[in-house]
Amino acid sequence: MPIEVSIIGGSGYTGGELIRVLLRHPEVKIKRVTSSQYAGMYLHMVHPNMRKVTELKFSSREEVEPCDVLFTCVPHGTAMKDMEGYMKLGKKVVDLSADFRLHDPKDYPTWYEHEHTRPDLLSKFVYGIPELHREQIKSTNYVAGAGCLATASILGLYPLAKAGIIEPDRIIIDAKVGSSAAGHEPSLSSHHPERSHVVRLYAGTGHRHTGEIEQELNFGIKPTVAFTAHAIEQVRGISATSHVFIKEELHKTLQEKDIWKTYRKEYENEPFMRLVKDKKGVFRYPEPKILLGTNYCDVGFEVDPHTRRLVVVSAIDNLMKGAAGAAVQCMNLMNGFPETTGLDAIGFHPI
Amino acid sequence: MPIEVSIIGGSGYTGGELIRVLLRHPEVKIKRVTSSQYAGMYLHMVHPNMRKVTELKFSSREEVEPCDVLFTCVPHGTAMKDMEGYMKLGKKVVDLSADFRLHDPKDYPTWYEHEHTRPDLLSKFVYGIPELHREQIKSTNYVAGAGCLATASILGLYPLAKAGIIEPDRIIIDAKVGSSAAGHEPSLSSHHPERSHVVRLYAGTGHRHTGEIEQELNFGIKPTVAFTAHAIEQVRGISATSHVFIKEELHKTLQEKDIWKTYRKEYENEPFMRLVKDKKGVFRYPEPKILLGTNYCDVGFEVDPHTRRLVVVSAIDNLMKGAAGAAVQCMNLMNGFPETTGLDAIGFHPI
Amino acid sequence: MPIEVSIIGGSGYTGGELIRVLLRHPEVKIKRVTSSQYAGMYLHMVHPNMRKVTELKFSSREEVEPCDVLFTCVPHGTAMKDMEGYMKLGKKVVDLSADFRLHDPKDYPTWYEHEHTRPDLLSKFVYGIPELHREQIKSTNYVAGAGCLATASILGLYPLAKAGIIEPDRIIIDAKVGSSAAGHEPSLSSHHPERSHVVRLYAGTGHRHTGEIEQELNFGIKPTVAFTAHAIEQVRGISATSHVFIKEELHKTLQEKDIWKTYRKEYENEPFMRLVKDKKGVFRYPEPKILLGTNYCDVGFEVDPHTRRLVVVSAIDNLMKGAAGAAVQCMNLMNGFPETTGLDAIGFHPI
Amino acid sequence: MPIEVSIIGGSGYTGGELIRVLLRHPEVKIKRVTSSQYAGMYLHMVHPNMRKVTELKFSSREEVEPCDVLFTCVPHGTAMKDMEGYMKLGKKVVDLSADFRLHDPKDYPTWYEHEHTRPDLLSKFVYGIPELHREQIKSTNYVAGAGCLATASILGLYPLAKAGIIEPDRIIIDAKVGSSAAGHEPSLSSHHPERSHVVRLYAGTGHRHTGEIEQELNFGIKPTVAFTAHAIEQVRGISATSHVFIKEELHKTLQEKDIWKTYRKEYENEPFMRLVKDKKGVFRYPEPKILLGTNYCDVGFEVDPHTRRLVVVSAIDNLMKGAAGAAVQCMNLMNGFPETTGLDAIGFHPI
Repeated sequence: MPIEVSIIGGSGYTGGELIRVLLRHPEVKIKRVTSSQYAGMYLHMVHPNMRKVTELKFSSREEVEPCDVLFTCVPHGTAMKDMEGYMKLGKKVVDLSADFRLHDPKDYPTWYEHEHTRPDLLSKFVYGIPELHREQIKSTNYVAGAGCLATASILGLYPLAKAGIIEPDRIIIDAKVGSSAAGHEPSLSSHHPERSHVVRLYAGTGHRHTGEIEQELNFGIKPTVAFTAHAIEQVRGISATSHVFIKEELHKTLQEKDIWKTYRKEYENEPFMRLVKDKKGVFRYPEPKILLGTNYCDVGFEVDPHTRRLVVVSAIDNLMKGAAGAAVQCMNLMNGFPETTGLDAIGFHPI
Repeated sequence: MPIEVSIIGGSGYTGGELIRVLLRHPEVKIKRVTSSQYAGMYLHMVHPNMRKVTELKFSSREEVEPCDVLFTCVPHGTAMKDMEGYMKLGKKVVDLSADFRLHDPKDYPTWYEHEHTRPDLLSKFVYGIPELHREQIKSTNYVAGAGCLATASILGLYPLAKAGIIEPDRIIIDAKVGSSAAGHEPSLSSHHPERSHVVRLYAGTGHRHTGEIEQELNFGIKPTVAFTAHAIEQVRGISATSHVFIKEELHKTLQEKDIWKTYRKEYENEPFMRLVKDKKGVFRYPEPKILLGTNYCDVGFEVDPHTRRLVVVSAIDNLMKGAAGAAVQCMNLMNGFPETTGLDAIGFHPI
Repeated sequence: MPIEVSIIGGSGYTGGELIRVLLRHPEVKIKRVTSSQYAGMYLHMVHPNMRKVTELKFSSREEVEPCDVLFTCVPHGTAMKDMEGYMKLGKKVVDLSADFRLHDPKDYPTWYEHEHTRPDLLSKFVYGIPELHREQIKSTNYVAGAGCLATASILGLYPLAKAGIIEPDRIIIDAKVGSSAAGHEPSLSSHHPERSHVVRLYAGTGHRHTGEIEQELNFGIKPTVAFTAHAIEQVRGISATSHVFIKEELHKTLQEKDIWKTYRKEYENEPFMRLVKDKKGVFRYPEPKILLGTNYCDVGFEVDPHTRRLVVVSAIDNLMKGAAGAAVQCMNLMNGFPETTGLDAIGFHPI
Repeated sequence: MPIEVSIIGGSGYTGGELIRVLLRHPEVKIKRVTSSQYAGMYLHMVHPNMRKVTELKFSSREEVEPCDVLFTCVPHGTAMKDMEGYMKLGKKVVDLSADFRLHDPKDYPTWYEHEHTRPDLLSKFVYGIPELHREQIKSTNYVAGAGCLATASILGLYPLAKAGIIEPDRIIIDAKVGSSAAGHEPSLSSHHPERSHVVRLYAGTGHRHTGEIEQELNFGIKPTVAFTAHAIEQVRGISATSHVFIKEELHKTLQEKDIWKTYRKEYENEPFMRLVKDKKGVFRYPEPKILLGTNYCDVGFEVDPHTRRLVVVSAIDNLMKGAAGAAVQCMNLMNGFPETTGLDAIGFHPI
C-alpha cells in the first residue's frame, strides 16, 4: 500500500520536479496537486513533460484531503501563515518554502526583513539536509527543506567546519546558479535576450541563504559567511566555490590526505555524496552539468600551496538535491523507506 | 534471473547511454563493456555520470563471454566485418551501427559509397523501429538499430505515407540535430568556440539516412526524399520538420480531423508516441528540449491553408529514441519483457 | 554638416540597434529618440551598451522637431495610423514596421488580418532591399524596411527566381531565428527556463512575411511560398534554408557552375552579399554566428543529385541586415552617401 | 601615411582579433600576418569573418619585412627565445605572450615552472595596462600585453590597493572565463558535448596570472592573491569577482561614497573604464555579455554590511581589453595616436 501525498502549490518549478519524482516513486501515490491559477487543468498544460505520463489535473486548495505527507511549495512568507492548517491535513509535512529553516526567530528580520509570525512552530521543524540531521529527520513529522544555494554550500564545507579545520570568520562562498532558481514568473531580467549568456551578479551581498549556512556550520563558534551569488547561462544547476582558510596553527602540519580523510569520515557512507577530485580527465571536479535529474551533491577541493586557502567546489541540481530530491529523501527517511527510493537516477553524459 | 548482456564499443556516446539505461533495467545484468582504448579502467573515467553508480571496468573484446544479448556500438563499416563473430557471442544481437539497416545491398554503394561485404546477413536483420516492425522484432534474433535522424523523420511521416495521403516524390525534410550526434571525437568543427551557437548546414544533400527513410516510407511506390540536416547549438536532441504535400485529388476534401485520425490510428496505443498539437501554451508542438533522457517521439503537424502542404514536426532525444532507448525497446520485445521496461523516464521541465 | 535624424520608438531592440549604428555614422547626428515609457531617462537605462557612449535621453513624441530622416520603429498597425504626421516631420522616412511593405492593399487582410487604413500612401513607399530596388530607393523619400525573415529568404532566392530557373510553386523555406526577433516584451514563452535551448516551431504556416517574399520573387508568375519559422537558442541571427526545385526542362542541362553564374551576376558587385560555399573548413556555408553586428547577407547553395532540388542557405543578423542595418543602408542611398557608410563592421570569430 | 604593422602568429584567436581591429584602424596598414601552418592561404580560410573583407594571405615568418610595429602572438615560452629577432624587425614590439609580463626573473620559475632565458630583456618591457602605466607606455618601444584574467582582476582592484583600503593578504578572486581563452586547438575538454554548459573549475589554485596580479597590486607591501578560475559556457568574456576586506582600522569609518570616490579618482577620465553600479535595471553590475567587441572594462562593487568585505566585479571581453584591444590601445599610445583610435566600438544589446 503506497502512502498518499499531496502537493500544495504544484505549478511552479519545484512543484513540477516533485511531481516528476513522485510519479515514479514506488511507495507513493499522488492524491492532489493544487494550483489556484490552473485548477481543473491537466498537469501537462503547465508541465509539458507530463504529457501522456499522468492524467492528473490541478486541484484547488479546498479539495485536498487529509494525507500521509503534504509537500508545501508556496511562496516564502505564506507558508508560516498557513502552516497550522497544513499540519492538520498532512500527518507529515515537508515545507519547501524558506519559512521554517532558521531556528532562531531573531534571524528572520535579519535575513528576511520581517518578523516570523509563528515562532511557536519553529522548533517543530528539522532542517532538511539528511547528511547533517538524518536521525532527527527520521523521527520528526515536520521538515523544512533547505535552500538550494545553502545546500550546496553547507555540504561542501560541513566536514571541514565540524572538524574545526577552517577559520570560521574567513568563509567566502562564490556561488553560480541557473535561471530555474528564480522561479517561473517572467520578468525583464528573465527575458531570454536579456538573460541568455549572462554572468550576472544578482546577490553580491545579503543573500537570504547566508543565514542558513551560518546556522548549519555553527560548531561552537557561529561562523561569519561572506556569500555571493551569480546568475549564469544554465537553466539548472548550482556550483558553489568556497574559499576557506586553514587555521594558522594547523597550516604547517595539515596535509592533503588529512583533508581527504575529513571528507571521507563524514561522507563515505552517504548515498548521495560523491568526492570528485581527479588528476586526469575532463570532469575532474564537481560540475552541475552531469548532475541534472540526480540527487547527488558532488564535492571536491584543492589545497592552495600559495596561501592557507582551501578551494572547495560543490555542485548540485538546484531543483533536485536543492529542492525536490532532498524533500523526497527526507520523506523516505520520515516514512522508513530506503533513503534512495525513487532517487536512483543516473546523470547524463553528454548533455 | 536477469538476462546477461554485453556491449561491444562502450566508450562512445551511444555506448554510454546504453549503459546508463541498462544499469537501471530490472531484467538485465551488464556483463561486459568493451573498449580497446580504455580496457581496465573504470567506466566513470570516460562516462563521468557513472561515478559511484557502478564498479564496472572496461574490458577488452577478447574477454567477452557468450551472453543473451550483445549490443554492438562499433564504427560503421566494421560491424559487417565482425558480425559473424558477434552472432556467435550473443544469442541475440542489436547492432547500433549503420551496417544492417538497408535491406537491399545495392543501396550501400548509393548511400555509403562502398559495397556491403556480407550481403548474405542482411536479410537476418529487422529494422529497429518497433512502431513499424513490432511483430518481426519480437521473433527475430537480429535487429539493426535505426539512424537517429531517420527515426525522427520516419515516425513523423509513417502514418501519412502508409495512408497514401501525401505525394511520395515531394517529401522535404529539414532536420536539426545537436552535437552529440557527431560522436565523441574532438575536431576543429566540434571545438567549442567554433561549434557553439551554430545553425550549420552540415548535410545539405546526400545524408546517409536518406536511404533508410525512403526504405521505410515505401508503400508500393518508393518515395523520393529530399533530406537536409543542420547542426544546432544543443548537445542532444533532434527536431525534424517535414514539408510534405497532400495529393491533389485529396486536397479539397481532406480535413484536419482526417489527418488527426490517420495519426491516431497508428499511434494511439504506442507507448512512446505522443501527438503534440495544442492551441495554447508554450510547448504546443514537439520539442526535443523536454525529451532528454526519454524514449518518446513527439509528433505534431499543421495544415497550410496557403498551399497543399502539411508541416510535420517530430522530435526525439537522439541518444535515446534515436539510439540506446530504441535498442532497449527492441531488446525488451525480443525477450518478452514489457516494452517500456527500463524506459519509463519522464522528461525534464524546465531544462 | 551631418544630417539630422530622429527615431520614433527607440526603446525596443530595433530602435536600440539603429542608435548603435547611427552613433558611429560619420554623416549623421541623432536629434531625438522617443519612448513614451522612458522619456526623460538616459538611453543606457534601457540599452546598457550605451553607457558612457552617449548622453542622449529619451524624448517624448511631442518633442521631435522636423528632421532630415525620420526612422519609425513603432508597432505594426500604428505606423499606418500616424504616417501622415511622420511625413511632415521627416523629409525622408524609413519605416521599420510592417505597414508599408506590401504594395497591394488586398494583401493586408490576407497576411495581417486587417484592412490597410491608408492605401493611398502605399505607392509612395519603396520596399527596402537595396539589392533589389537600389535605384528606386535612391530617388524616393519613403522606404518600408523589409521583414527580417523576408530579407534572408528573398536574398537567398532572388537570383534564381529572376533567372526563371526554379519552379515558382515549389518553394519551401525553413527558417530559424533567434529570440531577439520576438522583441523586448517578456512573456512566458520568452522566459529563460522555457525559451532556452528550444527548436520551436512558432510559425509552421501563415507567417506574415510570406506575403513579402511572394511579392518580391514575382517575376511574371506570382510564386507560392511554403514558409515555416522556428525559434532557436540564439538571441540574434537568422538562417533560412530554402528547398527549391529546378524546372524540369532545365534539370538535365543545368550545372552547378550555371547556378554559380546566376548568383554572381546579381551579387558580384553587391557590397553586403557574400557567396559562401567552400569545400573545406568549418564555416563552409552561411552561418549567422559570424554575422553578428554586420550588414552582410551570406548565401550558399548545394545541388541535390538525388532530386531536382537546390538547397539554398542564407544567413543574416536579424537586427542588422534584417532591420537597422538595412535601414541605414537605405538612408545612405536616399542621401547620396556611399552605401557602406557606417556599415563596415567586420563580424566576430570566435563568438 | 599609416604606419606599417605585422603580426607574428596570426592564425589563433588573439591574432584574428588583432587583424579585425587593425583592418579598421585609420592609422594602420597591415603588411604581414604570419602562420607557419597556413602560409599562402587567404585569411578567411581560418578567420571566416574576414571573407570579402580583406584579400590578405598568411605569410611565412621569413617574409616579414621591417615594420613600425610588430605584434607577436606566439606561444608562451617561444617569445623569449625569438624576441631579439623580433626587436630587429619591429621598431616597436607589442608582445601578446606571457613571456615579458613579470619584471622579476625569479617569478618565472614560480608561476611558469621554467627559468627565463632572456632576463636581460625583461626591463625593456612595460606592462601593458595603460590605466596603470600610461606614461611609460608612451615612451617605450616594448610592451608586454597583460594576461586577460589579470587585466580584469587588476583593473577591478587597483584603485582600492593603491589607496591602501584593503588588506593585502586577504584578496580572493573568483574568475569566470569563456572558451576562447583556451585557444583554438581542439581537445577532449573543448569538445562541444563535453565543454558546453559547464561551470568548470579549471584552475582552482596556481593560475599563472596570479603572479601578474600580485606584481601590479603591489603598493609597498606585496599582496597575497588567492586566485581561482572557472570555465563557463560563454565563448568570450571574463567576469572576475573579487572578495576583498577593508582594513580593520578603516572599517568603521569608511562609507560607500568613499569607495566611489576612490574609484572615480583613478578612472574618471579613463576612456575605457566604466563604473557600473545601478539600483535599478537588468544590467546593474558589469557583465561581459554587453562588452563583446569593445575595449571597455566595467567595474562595480558592493559593500557587505555583514562582514568587512567588499565585493568587486569587473568584466571585459577577453580577446579585446584582455588581449588585442589592449594591445592596440598600447600601440596608439606608443605612436602618439589618440588612445581610442580604432577602439570606439559600442557593445551589443541584445546579444
